[in-house]
Amino acid sequence: MLIEKKLEQMGLRLPAVAAPAGLYVFTKRVGSLVYVSGQTPDINSELQFKGVVGEDMDIETAQKAAQLAGLNVLSVLKAELGDLDRVKSFVQVLGYVRCAKGFEDHPKVINGASQLFKDLWGQAGVATRMAIGTNELPEGSPVEILAVVEVE
Amino acid sequence: MLIEKKLEQMGLRLPAVAAPAGLYVFTKRVGSLVYVSGQTPDINSELQFKGVVGEDMDIETAQKAAQLAGLNVLSVLKAELGDLDRVKSFVQVLGYVRCAKGFEDHPKVINGASQLFKDLWGQAGVATRMAIGTNELPEGSPVEILAVVEVE
Amino acid sequence: MLIEKKLEQMGLRLPAVAAPAGLYVFTKRVGSLVYVSGQTPDINSELQFKGVVGEDMDIETAQKAAQLAGLNVLSVLKAELGDLDRVKSFVQVLGYVRCAKGFEDHPKVINGASQLFKDLWGQAGVATRMAIGTNELPEGSPVEILAVVEVE
Repeated sequence: MLIEKKLEQMGLRLPAVAAPAGLYVFTKRVGSLVYVSGQTPDINSELQFKGVVGEDMDIETAQKAAQLAGLNVLSVLKAELGDLDRVKSFVQVLGYVRCAKGFEDHPKVINGASQLFKDLWGQAGVATRMAIGTNELPEGSPVEILAVVEVE
Repeated sequence: MLIEKKLEQMGLRLPAVAAPAGLYVFTKRVGSLVYVSGQTPDINSELQFKGVVGEDMDIETAQKAAQLAGLNVLSVLKAELGDLDRVKSFVQVLGYVRCAKGFEDHPKVINGASQLFKDLWGQAGVATRMAIGTNELPEGSPVEILAVVEVE
Repeated sequence: MLIEKKLEQMGLRLPAVAAPAGLYVFTKRVGSLVYVSGQTPDINSELQFKGVVGEDMDIETAQKAAQLAGLNVLSVLKAELGDLDRVKSFVQVLGYVRCAKGFEDHPKVINGASQLFKDLWGQAGVATRMAIGTNELPEGSPVEILAVVEVE
């Protein structure tokens, strides 16, 4: 449980895993890859952040939202794997930022999640990435993050 | 041909596979995975639904559009595999909804496709998923759906 | 170096690989797949194209932007593999077009990259694909392109 100890030392905790909101599962494993469904910054199915980045939400707040979405990625991975130490590498992170016209700093926002993965796994936590804008996200979430990870 | 029999019992049929509209293929297999190109609700290359969800199209209509896009996913999978019974599991479904400002119900729309896959394959048809908004889709389609499936 | 010879004959050259702008890597290999991060039409970290397609940029210009983003896909693949001849097949191309309201020709824009891959690898360069709209991309880029390729 080394990764979870690190999380604790960072003052962070994994949100409980809620039931999926619809016709999907949070994770699916194929061979050595685990695919993770789009995660938003919610706790117990309640969004903790809502807004349009660059309009009624600043970058720093959006980074915190991205970090929480990233923590939800970790929660569902733990439910799949039993122990986060079994994650070998983050392969792909797709990040969407609900943003105002003219907003250009999507990478800075998604860094809120990427920094978390790097702090916990070092260079193995640094994935290929996309960080782009979108007009709307479910329930008005400011960010949504998907991941594909390689596991032992 | 068990899956196709179920489809028939549900009163649904697979659209014919049209020629790809551009410089892409509908499917590509790598190992046990088949990647499927973005599918829209068209029949014989003609969109059957066109609009902006939450503006000039309601959720129920958009769900039917998503179901038709899902049927096109199945059509191209059949062309790749010969028999849909060879699909073992739906791994990832990415759904985009062309939507109005303030629209929040993307998951409900994409459920139109996810329900189809679940009805046909049970829990193996339930994938990891993303369902988000976008400002515009090709030809004014209200939805576009991609998939990655595991095959035998 | 057959692929690079073809590139030269086509009058094209690979941009230098810049340092990643943030907390990501340009490529990651898992088994026979290489995932490539979202690429924009930049040279030495400077965007060469900026705009909204269908508003202040026409399709032909956007296709050139997509081709340059595609060249950056090749540059980072070369850095990963040493030799582009080791690319066996393009599996998935995801293309986002920053576009005006009512724009419908996303596939034509992304063809700028897809044509490049096809010219170099023939049918093996033709991937499954998504080509859709988005309201905003990092730094105001008109296009962003991701890829998953199969390697020897």
